[in-house]
Amino acid sequence: MSTATQHATGFFHGRTIDDLRAQLRAEKMRAVDLAEAALTAISALDGELNAFVTADRDGALRAAERADAEIADGRDRGPLHGIPVAVKDIIDVAGLRTTMGSAHFAEHVSTEDAECVRRLRAAGAVIVGKTTTHEFAFGPTGDRAYNGASRNPHETRRMTGGSSGGSGAAVAAGIVPLALGTDTGGSVRIPASLCGVTGFKPAYGAVPADGVFPLSQTLDHVGVLAASTDDCRLGYRALAGLRPMPSREHGSEVSIGWIPPDLLHPTDPEVTGIARAALETDGLDVREVRPGGLDAMLRAFGAIQFSEAHAVHAERVAEAPQLFTDDVLAILRRAGETAGWQYVRALTERDQWRAVVAELLDEVELLAMPTTCVTAPEIDQREVDVRGTPTPVRGPLIGLTRPWNLAGAPAISVPAGTVGGLPVGLQLVGRPGQEDRLFAVAARVSR
Amino acid sequence: MSTATQHATGFFHGRTIDDLRAQLRAEKMRAVDLAEAALTAISALDGELNAFVTADRDGALRAAERADAEIADGRDRGPLHGIPVAVKDIIDVAGLRTTMGSAHFAEHVSTEDAECVRRLRAAGAVIVGKTTTHEFAFGPTGDRAYNGASRNPHETRRMTGGSSGGSGAAVAAGIVPLALGTDTGGSVRIPASLCGVTGFKPAYGAVPADGVFPLSQTLDHVGVLAASTDDCRLGYRALAGLRPMPSREHGSEVSIGWIPPDLLHPTDPEVTGIARAALETDGLDVREVRPGGLDAMLRAFGAIQFSEAHAVHAERVAEAPQLFTDDVLAILRRAGETAGWQYVRALTERDQWRAVVAELLDEVELLAMPTTCVTAPEIDQREVDVRGTPTPVRGPLIGLTRPWNLAGAPAISVPAGTVGGLPVGLQLVGRPGQEDRLFAVAARVSR
Repeated sequence: MSTATQHATGFFHGRTIDDLRAQLRAEKMRAVDLAEAALTAISALDGELNAFVTADRDGALRAAERADAEIADGRDRGPLHGIPVAVKDIIDVAGLRTTMGSAHFAEHVSTEDAECVRRLRAAGAVIVGKTTTHEFAFGPTGDRAYNGASRNPHETRRMTGGSSGGSGAAVAAGIVPLALGTDTGGSVRIPASLCGVTGFKPAYGAVPADGVFPLSQTLDHVGVLAASTDDCRLGYRALAGLRPMPSREHGSEVSIGWIPPDLLHPTDPEVTGIARAALETDGLDVREVRPGGLDAMLRAFGAIQFSEAHAVHAERVAEAPQLFTDDVLAILRRAGETAGWQYVRALTERDQWRAVVAELLDEVELLAMPTTCVTAPEIDQREVDVRGTPTPVRGPLIGLTRPWNLAGAPAISVPAGTVGGLPVGLQLVGRPGQEDRLFAVAARVSR
Repeated sequence: MSTATQHATGFFHGRTIDDLRAQLRAEKMRAVDLAEAALTAISALDGELNAFVTADRDGALRAAERADAEIADGRDRGPLHGIPVAVKDIIDVAGLRTTMGSAHFAEHVSTEDAECVRRLRAAGAVIVGKTTTHEFAFGPTGDRAYNGASRNPHETRRMTGGSSGGSGAAVAAGIVPLALGTDTGGSVRIPASLCGVTGFKPAYGAVPADGVFPLSQTLDHVGVLAASTDDCRLGYRALAGLRPMPSREHGSEVSIGWIPPDLLHPTDPEVTGIARAALETDGLDVREVRPGGLDAMLRAFGAIQFSEAHAVHAERVAEAPQLFTDDVLAILRRAGETAGWQYVRALTERDQWRAVVAELLDEVELLAMPTTCVTAPEIDQREVDVRGTPTPVRGPLIGLTRPWNLAGAPAISVPAGTVGGLPVGLQLVGRPGQEDRLFAVAARVSR
């Protein structure tokens, strides 16, 4: 197992959960070996990546030993049994620090597991540590955190994207095969896109958010990042309390509605081209769709996220502003200026947007577009060039993902190729209840 | 029937709906006679009271003739068949003006009946006209309306209370036996209290608000005003789509929780004394209860009402402020300053208040307190003396009623006596689903 330290990537690079599972079941490998491999990779790689806030060697080895004992006893908890998992540091894991990426919570230790963590443990997963989150999950860059920026394994001077940046880097580097993230405007899918892994945001409410520190409660989703759609699907089913089931291939042609991304936000044409090309796959019937009501959608997302976020932080902003980074303090202050009547209207506009999306998904089975408008900017870069226009970095990162948080629809980002050596994500969006269809198509188009 | 004009009060003064119904069924009286009596009373009294915006002679007589024909045919639509009803001028009645009490809607004619009006018509009721509402129902005084202040039949220099002021005056003066109102912070119960009639606000959602111009959508309730609790109950059951059923007396002792009103808002001790004395009735077991969480309740009511009200009016406030009265423009502008994050917190605080009320109503069957903190102030009076302190008029009028809009609980105001010749209301609050119990106790304590 010690080979893991010899490479620039961790042991789990190129290994699927199904492969690992087969080896565990055949007793060619023990859960303790997998946990050691993850911990070794953290030691070897995390100095460069800063993907982790906390590595929990003792807890991981204890859990792995228990998993091994159960396997030896013939008790099988399913596909995640004995698999190392990393957890975003905004999600409670009993006995570990949960910093929220913030100086406000630098010494905060959680006393209980979040419900999503409880479900992972019940499925036999082994928690190996907590991953870097953008401060309070309020930012898509992943480079504003109490423990410093997470770094993109493809080029470490570039951002991972955020807010689940550590989870994206940890999976991309092969440190763990699966990681938990949260996604309020794209925070699972953006780092998946920028780091070249797969990220899945379930339907709203499909995975309970109890024990997850809120950003914006009606937009917050717990999601997963992994190297493949199959692995995301395994993680998702455990989190949603669904029993493991093999994925089925659908023989019939799938109708895909391509949304020209510039409708939602100006997008790098090369990124658009790579994402669109990934859909040139047998069995997909792709046509262009153009959703209406986008101004109202944008207004609604802003008013809801801002109002709900400031409601979480009002006292901290008023009483201890110096403990925030400048970026997050500035956006929280701006968030506090949203009026109540705008929030009230936003709730109606959200319902209208949901109706628009439901109607689109009556016409086509899935919607498709790039995940982000650009590839990974550099760490601390606050303006990116998009189609020749200098643009504040937030928009091109969340512009294509936030509509699906407002809609509450399941959405996945899969690697579609690269531009200038940097990963480009293709995003697919489906109907709640049709997740298996979404995963099946995602697997087919993933590059 | 012509006697109605000879008196300072209309024909319906002292007559119950059951009495009228018996006379209709015995063919001693026709629905057309009742409609004429109402229209005659409007002609005779409304110059003084300004309770009506519109009297619909043609529509009323047509509806009454139809009701008579049905009765002659042996078709019985129930207790409201042939009964004249007045409708607050913020509720759509097809073909009639609906002014909302506002210059903005001075010429607005509704094309469809509101659902509550449809239900009244289906029950055989005869709509005779539209009653004065405080401008956009946003005020508890009833003296800011495009068509002028409604006047209290007990002393016409005094306010009716509002916002359903015309409905209160019309019932108090015997012009109609039943009137529709709406109640967002007390707008049915306050004029009932100040005019000396009975006013019932159902549980939230029990009567659909479709076709009712919104003030604050999560607090708005459609309610009824009548001379007695029995008549309110008949009106309520028709509005809620419940079939008519005779009220039953409950033999057992009823536990009442008296809330010292000064906990909610400083209250005139004489008013408190009259309301409390009305509970000195056999079969009531009265004890004091003191709800917690009142600061949060007040905050929540304010943030919700203000945010939702401004959301309704933002464009009118920005583009045509001159069409509002100064009072309503001022409060709408203030309402626009509520922050989104305060609204978000208010939703949580509302849920907490509902839990407080549910817990109280596990301990006692009904809650009791005065309906308003004072008797009717004079028209245009903007400050009242409460316990020696000059107080802006809004607080003492809505201070005891608004908690039950936030709770969504059914609440009734019944006449409890007088102070200085002016009516005092006793308010009873119950659990949704226990309306019959509430009506039965209200009937026993009504003076």
